Amino acid sequence: MYQHSLQYRVLYADTDQMGYVYHGNYPKLYEAGRNEAIRALGLSYKELESIGIWMPVTQMEFKLLRPAFYDEVLTIITSIQVLPETKLNFYTEVYSQEDKLLNAGKISLAFVDANTKKSSAAPQVLLEKLLPYFTS
Amino acid sequence: MYQHSLQYRVLYADTDQMGYVYHGNYPKLYEAGRNEAIRALGLSYKELESIGIWMPVTQMEFKLLRPAFYDEVLTIITSIQVLPETKLNFYTEVYSQEDKLLNAGKISLAFVDANTKKSSAAPQVLLEKLLPYFTS
Amino acid sequence: MYQHSLQYRVLYADTDQMGYVYHGNYPKLYEAGRNEAIRALGLSYKELESIGIWMPVTQMEFKLLRPAFYDEVLTIITSIQVLPETKLNFYTEVYSQEDKLLNAGKISLAFVDANTKKSSAAPQVLLEKLLPYFTS
Amino acid sequence: MYQHSLQYRVLYADTDQMGYVYHGNYPKLYEAGRNEAIRALGLSYKELESIGIWMPVTQMEFKLLRPAFYDEVLTIITSIQVLPETKLNFYTEVYSQEDKLLNAGKISLAFVDANTKKSSAAPQVLLEKLLPYFTS
Repeated sequence: MYQHSLQYRVLYADTDQMGYVYHGNYPKLYEAGRNEAIRALGLSYKELESIGIWMPVTQMEFKLLRPAFYDEVLTIITSIQVLPETKLNFYTEVYSQEDKLLNAGKISLAFVDANTKKSSAAPQVLLEKLLPYFTS
Repeated sequence: MYQHSLQYRVLYADTDQMGYVYHGNYPKLYEAGRNEAIRALGLSYKELESIGIWMPVTQMEFKLLRPAFYDEVLTIITSIQVLPETKLNFYTEVYSQEDKLLNAGKISLAFVDANTKKSSAAPQVLLEKLLPYFTS
Repeated sequence: MYQHSLQYRVLYADTDQMGYVYHGNYPKLYEAGRNEAIRALGLSYKELESIGIWMPVTQMEFKLLRPAFYDEVLTIITSIQVLPETKLNFYTEVYSQEDKLLNAGKISLAFVDANTKKSSAAPQVLLEKLLPYFTS
Repeated sequence: MYQHSLQYRVLYADTDQMGYVYHGNYPKLYEAGRNEAIRALGLSYKELESIGIWMPVTQMEFKLLRPAFYDEVLTIITSIQVLPETKLNFYTEVYSQEDKLLNAGKISLAFVDANTKKSSAAPQVLLEKLLPYFTS
């Protein structure tokens, strides 16, 4: 399994009038987590794009257990639990400053050839970076 | 079953550099759909708040089948398929201008007492408005 | 002068924990206003793009006089007061449901050749549509 | 003068279909800069709220000179150039990874008594923190 941790400070922009982080802002935080998780592998999503691979989100589900509040420092734990074949699944957990689980999501991304716009297999360059985390 | 339809014109603000509507912007569109669906019942989420009922989103899942594009007029179909007890489930489908299904989501909202912050049953005023759509 | 009016219902997504529409969400509403203002001329920003004209925002200023609230129907008045030469200036005013001026902005857009990425003059097709509103 | 620097990595969520950071996302980045600038003073906007001071944005202007791109690390320089009396003015500059000025804004915040919702003078606790930067 590959796992990465990112911290994020909640802005006023993220809140809604309940005084909570608006639920619709979590997909953006999950993206920030994935972004840095891939970069920490020694790769970047931008590089993948530059070799002609798009990775659109195809499915997302998340549970909201507890609210997050303005000015809190959230911890975003992103993990890849299975080596990708035609899809890359990310599991994301967001923890409060007191280390309580606030919400958790599963996000699936496809690999798409930027030219043909057709789905393709996981790029070799990504698999190579992930492999060390999946051998026993 | 209760169903409602809303149209939405895609803004530049909604797009990302793939030229698609950013996946993380759909929860906001789903909210717009729910908002108007409840209003069309002769109620408003704001009124529910004013009688002390909060309805936070507790779970969301959606599939993205096809991208939406700038300037397109999307059709957001929101439906309630079961009378709510402790949760209110919305099914939302977003269709393109050519009437193709672009994405579909299921969103669960809890009923929360604004004072105690504890979950409560579906408010009577909502059930009364919905009932006519669920009798045979 | 050319003027256009658009209505917008405030979403939960637009609010912040003060219970107001977050100030940083107004540029998006101003965009919605400009979008429909241009479309009402019988043109669309998308068409301008398709003939190779980009119109990036180069300057924006706005004053926030009164807050806007959840579920309110705002009126967005967009006007063009001078025929564009190298810039297109929009004046945008947002009014509450009670017809009070909430905020007002001035937004400048440049004309850019999508190929050369250099600034260009106002496109003829836009000037033709605007001209009838500027002759006495 | 008081000055603070913050780094921000551009997300996919921030971009639009021109491939640039959408202009309407800058107010949020400016907020992030102000937030951390105040915190670095040994105070936080949240604390100010907790003693009954709201600081709504009342005016904002910004110039967009060059675009910012996906995955770039932006530097947000926030400065306070004058001790606040009834308004607090922030100057914000955003620089690219190559240290080019991309955009610059001036943002004015009022001090509002959270109870009376009337404007008030700059709170003593803030002035005390700022004073050392404004004595010669």
